[in-house]
Amino acid sequence: MEREVKVVIYGMGEIGKRVVRALSEKKGVKVVGAIDIAESKIGKDVGELAGLDRKLGVVVSPNVDKVLGETKPDVVIHMTQSYFKKVFPQLVKIVEYGANVVSTCEELSYPYIVDENLAKKLDSLAKEHGVTILGTGINPGFLMDTLVITLTGACVKVNKIKVTRVINASTRREPFQRKIGAGLSVEEFNDRIKKKIISGHVGLEQSIALIASALGWKLDKIVVEDVKPVVAEKEIKTDFLVVKPGQVAGLMQIAKGIAEGEEKIILDFRAFVGASEEYDAIEIDGLPPINEKIVPCVHGDWGTVAMVINSIPKVINAPPGLKTMKDLPVPSATPVDLRVCLKS
Amino acid sequence: MEREVKVVIYGMGEIGKRVVRALSEKKGVKVVGAIDIAESKIGKDVGELAGLDRKLGVVVSPNVDKVLGETKPDVVIHMTQSYFKKVFPQLVKIVEYGANVVSTCEELSYPYIVDENLAKKLDSLAKEHGVTILGTGINPGFLMDTLVITLTGACVKVNKIKVTRVINASTRREPFQRKIGAGLSVEEFNDRIKKKIISGHVGLEQSIALIASALGWKLDKIVVEDVKPVVAEKEIKTDFLVVKPGQVAGLMQIAKGIAEGEEKIILDFRAFVGASEEYDAIEIDGLPPINEKIVPCVHGDWGTVAMVINSIPKVINAPPGLKTMKDLPVPSATPVDLRVCLKS
Repeated sequence: MEREVKVVIYGMGEIGKRVVRALSEKKGVKVVGAIDIAESKIGKDVGELAGLDRKLGVVVSPNVDKVLGETKPDVVIHMTQSYFKKVFPQLVKIVEYGANVVSTCEELSYPYIVDENLAKKLDSLAKEHGVTILGTGINPGFLMDTLVITLTGACVKVNKIKVTRVINASTRREPFQRKIGAGLSVEEFNDRIKKKIISGHVGLEQSIALIASALGWKLDKIVVEDVKPVVAEKEIKTDFLVVKPGQVAGLMQIAKGIAEGEEKIILDFRAFVGASEEYDAIEIDGLPPINEKIVPCVHGDWGTVAMVINSIPKVINAPPGLKTMKDLPVPSATPVDLRVCLKS
Repeated sequence: MEREVKVVIYGMGEIGKRVVRALSEKKGVKVVGAIDIAESKIGKDVGELAGLDRKLGVVVSPNVDKVLGETKPDVVIHMTQSYFKKVFPQLVKIVEYGANVVSTCEELSYPYIVDENLAKKLDSLAKEHGVTILGTGINPGFLMDTLVITLTGACVKVNKIKVTRVINASTRREPFQRKIGAGLSVEEFNDRIKKKIISGHVGLEQSIALIASALGWKLDKIVVEDVKPVVAEKEIKTDFLVVKPGQVAGLMQIAKGIAEGEEKIILDFRAFVGASEEYDAIEIDGLPPINEKIVPCVHGDWGTVAMVINSIPKVINAPPGLKTMKDLPVPSATPVDLRVCLKS
């Protein structure tokens, strides 16, 4: 591909803005359109909205048909919602306009366990229009699934897999600390869980299903446990709040893939203030055994932006259809000029 | 593919034997032939030679044409030599018999830097015969290249990469300890280097070139430094030998990928007795930065066997041609029944 890759941003939230900023430092790629329904964003220049010091000459529009019809993008970076059924009509429309899709929709990272028929329908539609659809991100999409799968490549045998992600929320912004319940009493926390003000991590189920699918494992069930509070044992002070002993420091959630009564895949996600270490760990009980750890844990927002941008050449080069991370070539950072990694 | 995958073992050395043992625990795959030129192996049953407690009904033959012609394998597991030009005629013959190839030839993991024309010729020939050729292993093939590339997938920007593999030879067999020079004086060590009795790790150059290729980096040069002794500071006793202070504990080798005067990729390989920790570490200076470590380091022999076996479905499913690890889907352990991961 000799010309620039044309990208439309669908969803100008925090990740969307970062994607715009990161793309502005690349060559061979151009943001040609942006879609968002928020009144506060409509009509604004994408560059200014993203915090760049210059206009990009592209304004945010709520009109999907107009943007896609007029710009004819190669790829739409889709960042609107977490649930497959909710984004399905949006994806159908993008595909019908003949554009490839990289989406951060968590459930799209392995949609077959949400609604197999709908996933197959999307796959057929993508093939019909000659485009590729991929759900990705840092988690789901990489740390608790694709990276795990990759490491099993060095194993002759795999018996059991344990993955742990621990985020020290003390180093994060105030909204994140509040979101995970830091500083609440256990009662308040449980009440917010009930009212769905605090919700779990979407995608643990997808990560387990993606791993099992790559390894050819037939799971009997995937159990996603309730979100639980991580209770502080001693006082924790952050820049924004104080957590007293017995109060909530954050949250944790565990999911398990079970086959023949055995826990074959265990994912353990924790985010709380005062964590002594933050890390991403993968333990594979196999031949050979593999104990891998990333310290500190990979930054979620930048990691997601990276996974999204780095998937652009992969989806353009891939055969058409609805793909998952296990179907595509190994992830890799894109060069400064994106055209380098596009097949001509 | 409903029938069993037919495999020929080309090279019944230590890795070849382990591959036979590992394949014997899988379903949907059958060793249909074995090639080796060693007088001591010819005519022996592959199962017995590999240390299985049963015959496989396949005997080792030195006659490549006979074995390939009679067995018509889907894949040949090729494990003979380290250098691309030496194995080239062997690979050509396999391809002409219409079989896919997974090879542990170190230079084949990225042969373009050895002889670009020869590599392109092999690619054309593979396409002509509709087969796929892959050079892989644990190192080169995974720890110092494919895994590195995979981790950069979570980076928006990559400035510099450092990879370190430290093997504690104290835990290895005596021949390995002797091979790396443990117990020699520095003079003896350097003499053996000169006489090429002790040689460096083959493949560091390939690993650097593979990473650069995946990231779209143009390197000015790849510098592979001389093998150097790791000198013991205190006495080290192993089950087989004693190293006194000032004597050689093992060896180390460094390779660098350089662009515009900057060291962009550094690979540091060390194997010595008395290492306090053995590990595989990857440090990516990027956005976000990633510091990853596998402790203990991945077992080289089992890791290579795994990479080879796990590549069987990938090469069968891949489009024809000479491929490198970056071109194929993410590595993954094969299920017990290999047929599960084959496209029909």
